[in-house]
Amino acid sequence: MFEENYKLKYISDLSELREVFQKAHDHVKSQFKLYEDKKSHSFDHIVRVTNTCLNLAQKLEAHLDVLLLASIFHDVGRPIEEINGRCHAEVSAEEADKFLDKLNLSKLKKDVNEAILSHRFSKKIEPRTIEAKILQDADALDALGAIGLYRTISFSCERGLDMQEALIHFDEKLFKLPSRMHFPITKQIAESKCIILKEFVKKIEEESSNSFFNIFLQQNDGKYLRKNKSPKKNFKYS
Amino acid sequence: MFEENYKLKYISDLSELREVFQKAHDHVKSQFKLYEDKKSHSFDHIVRVTNTCLNLAQKLEAHLDVLLLASIFHDVGRPIEEINGRCHAEVSAEEADKFLDKLNLSKLKKDVNEAILSHRFSKKIEPRTIEAKILQDADALDALGAIGLYRTISFSCERGLDMQEALIHFDEKLFKLPSRMHFPITKQIAESKCIILKEFVKKIEEESSNSFFNIFLQQNDGKYLRKNKSPKKNFKYS
Repeated sequence: MFEENYKLKYISDLSELREVFQKAHDHVKSQFKLYEDKKSHSFDHIVRVTNTCLNLAQKLEAHLDVLLLASIFHDVGRPIEEINGRCHAEVSAEEADKFLDKLNLSKLKKDVNEAILSHRFSKKIEPRTIEAKILQDADALDALGAIGLYRTISFSCERGLDMQEALIHFDEKLFKLPSRMHFPITKQIAESKCIILKEFVKKIEEESSNSFFNIFLQQNDGKYLRKNKSPKKNFKYS
Repeated sequence: MFEENYKLKYISDLSELREVFQKAHDHVKSQFKLYEDKKSHSFDHIVRVTNTCLNLAQKLEAHLDVLLLASIFHDVGRPIEEINGRCHAEVSAEEADKFLDKLNLSKLKKDVNEAILSHRFSKKIEPRTIEAKILQDADALDALGAIGLYRTISFSCERGLDMQEALIHFDEKLFKLPSRMHFPITKQIAESKCIILKEFVKKIEEESSNSFFNIFLQQNDGKYLRKNKSPKKNFKYS
């Protein structure tokens, strides 16, 4: 499926890209092994995001070399951010630079850097290239669906948030993601991945009604009210 | 709704039960406040289980006094178990004893104790009374549905398990719960609460397929294989 109809910008052919990508993969994976207690953004996440980028590259006519290198490196700085608080997008961009320099692929640096630096919504750097847009969308898609649900709950648990605080994140961030997508195809995937999240929130609200308990104790119905509470800490996924 | 058609075994009327129950509620709640960093079995869980017991009491013709006291106390020993490892069912039964003695309600102790001690599946004490059966079912029902999903993920995160390990719990325990229910009505609720869990597991498997990534790297498909891994630690919910 990658043997034809792919676009490359700096690397000469697919077999060279495959070789470079394998080295990048091994390098990033080894970085995560050094920090394996930092679970919330695991290497699995990088693999899923890169998988989505590969899926979208041909459909959206992106340069596969730029996109793949940006994608595999985009979160390599996450464990560092967990330790010293430095923005992982910046750390990841620097790590990609060093890696590309070592392989004499410095010509790739500018485009890969741009995509990595703009992948994080909260940095408010508008992605300009098609590769940067795909990476931002692919990263956001991994915050949705069943895996997004799993990650949201784990992330809130790691930060000591309770269920009510975790659920605010669904309204404040997750349900807004489809409208932030850069392409019709990613918007459509995002909307379909929101279905399980919406069902989950609806069911939580139904199951949280303690009407019998409250009637018996002659209290007001303590039905879960997620609109009335602000979270202690913001989530910073992307 | 509780003004008629309820059964009491030891307490003379509903207003006395309400007074005793309010005291029990305040006592158990205050115990949880002492240990508020122990989140995995929160006071909310007790309230939901008691709510379910209240819902089922009339339908199944249980003694409301025995059931309510057993239910509100059933997990009061959980924070202690987290600290010193002593079985929470035993600690909870002792706490209920002390509370009932103080209020001169020692006649309730035997039935309440029996229900509390047998609520935990892993203790393998077969519940014999209708109240003990209802409590065991109501407790298990809170491990299912959207709240059960949330609790399973948080619980696995607290124990440092990864997604693959957490998902084994769905097959090994959660999907077996409907068959363990003691009444047709609780079996039916359990089955309907399994739907969202089954949908979640199905979606996780779909979303975990990294086919593009693996084809590109010429690896075998790394599709998530939850059957092939044993969990590091067992879950002990009930």
